[in-house]
Amino acid sequence: MREEIRGVAGLAGGRAGHRRLAELIPLVLNGLAEGTVERGAAGPAGGPAAVAAGVAALTGTDPLAGPTGVGAEQALSELSRLLAAGSVDPADPACAAHLHCPPLAVAVAADVVAGALNPSMDSWDQAPVASELERELVTLIARLCYPQAPAPDAVVTTGGTESNLLGLLLAREPAPTVRPVCGRNAHHSVARAAWLLGLPAPVLVDCDGGRLRPAPLEETLRTLGAPAVVVATAGTTDTGEIDPLRDLADVCRRHGARLHVDASYGGLALCSAKLKPLLDGLDEADSIALDAHKFGWQPISAGLLAVGRSSDLAALSVRAEYLNAGDDTEAGLPDLLGRSIRTSRRPDAFRMAVTFRALGIDGMGALVEHCCATAADVASAIEADPSLRLWGAPTLSTVLFRPARADELPAATGDELVARVRRTLLEAGTAIVGRATMADGVWLKLTLLHPHATVEDYRPLLGSVVTTANALAAEVAGSAVPG
Amino acid sequence: MREEIRGVAGLAGGRAGHRRLAELIPLVLNGLAEGTVERGAAGPAGGPAAVAAGVAALTGTDPLAGPTGVGAEQALSELSRLLAAGSVDPADPACAAHLHCPPLAVAVAADVVAGALNPSMDSWDQAPVASELERELVTLIARLCYPQAPAPDAVVTTGGTESNLLGLLLAREPAPTVRPVCGRNAHHSVARAAWLLGLPAPVLVDCDGGRLRPAPLEETLRTLGAPAVVVATAGTTDTGEIDPLRDLADVCRRHGARLHVDASYGGLALCSAKLKPLLDGLDEADSIALDAHKFGWQPISAGLLAVGRSSDLAALSVRAEYLNAGDDTEAGLPDLLGRSIRTSRRPDAFRMAVTFRALGIDGMGALVEHCCATAADVASAIEADPSLRLWGAPTLSTVLFRPARADELPAATGDELVARVRRTLLEAGTAIVGRATMADGVWLKLTLLHPHATVEDYRPLLGSVVTTANALAAEVAGSAVPG
Repeated sequence: MREEIRGVAGLAGGRAGHRRLAELIPLVLNGLAEGTVERGAAGPAGGPAAVAAGVAALTGTDPLAGPTGVGAEQALSELSRLLAAGSVDPADPACAAHLHCPPLAVAVAADVVAGALNPSMDSWDQAPVASELERELVTLIARLCYPQAPAPDAVVTTGGTESNLLGLLLAREPAPTVRPVCGRNAHHSVARAAWLLGLPAPVLVDCDGGRLRPAPLEETLRTLGAPAVVVATAGTTDTGEIDPLRDLADVCRRHGARLHVDASYGGLALCSAKLKPLLDGLDEADSIALDAHKFGWQPISAGLLAVGRSSDLAALSVRAEYLNAGDDTEAGLPDLLGRSIRTSRRPDAFRMAVTFRALGIDGMGALVEHCCATAADVASAIEADPSLRLWGAPTLSTVLFRPARADELPAATGDELVARVRRTLLEAGTAIVGRATMADGVWLKLTLLHPHATVEDYRPLLGSVVTTANALAAEVAGSAVPG
Repeated sequence: MREEIRGVAGLAGGRAGHRRLAELIPLVLNGLAEGTVERGAAGPAGGPAAVAAGVAALTGTDPLAGPTGVGAEQALSELSRLLAAGSVDPADPACAAHLHCPPLAVAVAADVVAGALNPSMDSWDQAPVASELERELVTLIARLCYPQAPAPDAVVTTGGTESNLLGLLLAREPAPTVRPVCGRNAHHSVARAAWLLGLPAPVLVDCDGGRLRPAPLEETLRTLGAPAVVVATAGTTDTGEIDPLRDLADVCRRHGARLHVDASYGGLALCSAKLKPLLDGLDEADSIALDAHKFGWQPISAGLLAVGRSSDLAALSVRAEYLNAGDDTEAGLPDLLGRSIRTSRRPDAFRMAVTFRALGIDGMGALVEHCCATAADVASAIEADPSLRLWGAPTLSTVLFRPARADELPAATGDELVARVRRTLLEAGTAIVGRATMADGVWLKLTLLHPHATVEDYRPLLGSVVTTANALAAEVAGSAVPG
């Protein structure tokens, strides 16, 4: 091997790894700092074409990598700066579209040592202490979810989508003909999980006020004629609504249906004594999806699935002679392969463990409370502004609103104006705002996950929405196809 | 929020993030350095009980996290050191059990900026430049896999297990009654994917010399009576064998069967002009699984699925109004949701892109060649040692062998000795060696993924195997149940 390749290929682990990382990481932090200043806003300006041109300017007419490399230092410096300059940064309050959190520095720092040592969570001989720390972390989460259960458990997933898949899978194993049932407010991953698992498409139950109600659920289960797994939601993607969990659990129990709660958004409100009552009845669920990359402030991925009875997870057991041979398990080596549907698996539990240990449960709860309180303040600011219209009081940290100008136009044109305002702000990089399609049209959505920002940080964004709506209104109205 | 919680909850992004990371990352690098010295071997000594005791000594009788946190600095310092002291380190040549690579420092450093900015790859407005860089990376991989195809494509996965799942899923969509068919040498994830997808268990075809052969495959397909998806392997987990891909592709074509190749281990040998011929016929596959967290030297996860026809990926399309509304897509916002079965998705492509750009394709190929050459050297060293027996010449970088002492015992006792040698070395932390159960018994396995180690680095490990086998032989023989 040529000496220059050996130099580029320095390892992150071993006795010298920390020194090599100490040389390289300052380059990426410098790229992060410079790219952030270069961007100068929540997102890059110019939309997809400008971003693609920025990448092309770096690579020229060459592909990303030709036969010969540019070396570690140059690649890191250039691409880190490019990434920072061309990203939307959730640490900027004006980046508030999605359940897309700004990660804590403590979590990102923890990932350095996890990445360097690269424990793989599928066998003890690849992850001795990492698997033990994961056990501590999932025990903590399981007890948070199921404070009364004698043997709750949890596993780490890539996110709510995989957790919802596991929720349906655990229902399918004892009952192959199980029928998924969920509200129309459920996340698209529920239908996607059913599709992946070869189950029928979920039976969709109409919602009222964005929530799945016990009466229509009961009616559905009464006439279903098949075993059911009901998916309820604790924090919908569109509005942050929480289904009436205890009442739904009662209905499920009466009909022998399994209950999975998608608490990917709202679950970690359990860390707050003040907010916990919102999740009343959650521990009646058979399984619960949570995401520490939403509230939890982890970089993706940091999903979790908690179950009230650890025995339920036995359905995931699998044997592979090279990973969990019977005689190794008998000799006391923990069998980890059945803790996931993946095989090689990142130690995402490590940075979650570090973060929980750093903040404490109450500290985590305080951050969740902060976001919810800020959402309430932002909602009040919107309500007080006659040029904006609030959809409704936020339940968690999601605020839906639209410019009043949109209401002055025919419905379809008003919706188009709302969508155009969003795209215009996005293309300018000024603000990254989400959208939600509700029964009464298209709304702008702020999903507030910034654990420090206050209402004052959101006033400029609200102002931009009004200004942009005013600037676009005539054009949108003029181009509207008469209905 | 109390001021101390605000301090612990400093963000990794924004204008100040790089400074906070520059304060915290030295603590984890220090923990990495100290923990590595403390460990003093490839792995921790004492086995599961000692490792669990080490964690308990840190947390005391408390759980990992109580109501109050210990702060970012303490949590990072203590847990980083604990992780390093209690991990098996693939950067130590004596840690050679699994397809578990020592990550390059350049890849780990790149992850810092990716983690700080936290792009989520499911929508353009969460990942503007990250999605563009992913497009460049997957184009590079797709062209590497399919140099002749007009429109190849690739998507990023969590690893070979998810890639194999996608391979079967893409086969299932146009043919719901598809039957998976694979050699007995296939990875356990193929059967697991069939189970998840609600497909029948794979039809297992007997192998010869650890490889799936065209004649028995042809016989199976001839009599199957259903559409088939054949899974071939380019680099088996047990021995690194590569199936005769071109011949298998011919058989599949004749029978109208779809072909998926699990090249999770061997795929990136495509980067080496010297090794590429081993993969002859790979581009005849409909889909290919690759893992850059094996050869590729990324921290987990870094999986890929390449397809010869980008149109095949249309089966993954999904619509969610909040992520890819029709009018947004029409207005030019790229629709990314159908690039994965996950929703929120890590920017693993970023560090892969940085690594490929740093090393170049040839540089990556040189690292693969180095591992394969070292495996050949280690095999020669084993062959030259009368106290060891070599299973066979390595194809890639996997070397199977066993202590000759095991051959002097009855078969079952010999196997037990081999397994005991492995566990004894693991529990001492001296060496992390794998195992493979072959037709003729249990073998020790070295999977050489260290891109710098040479045969000299493995001689102590081979010596330990002999010494340990000699020390245990009498005990194992004495305790054997007479057969």
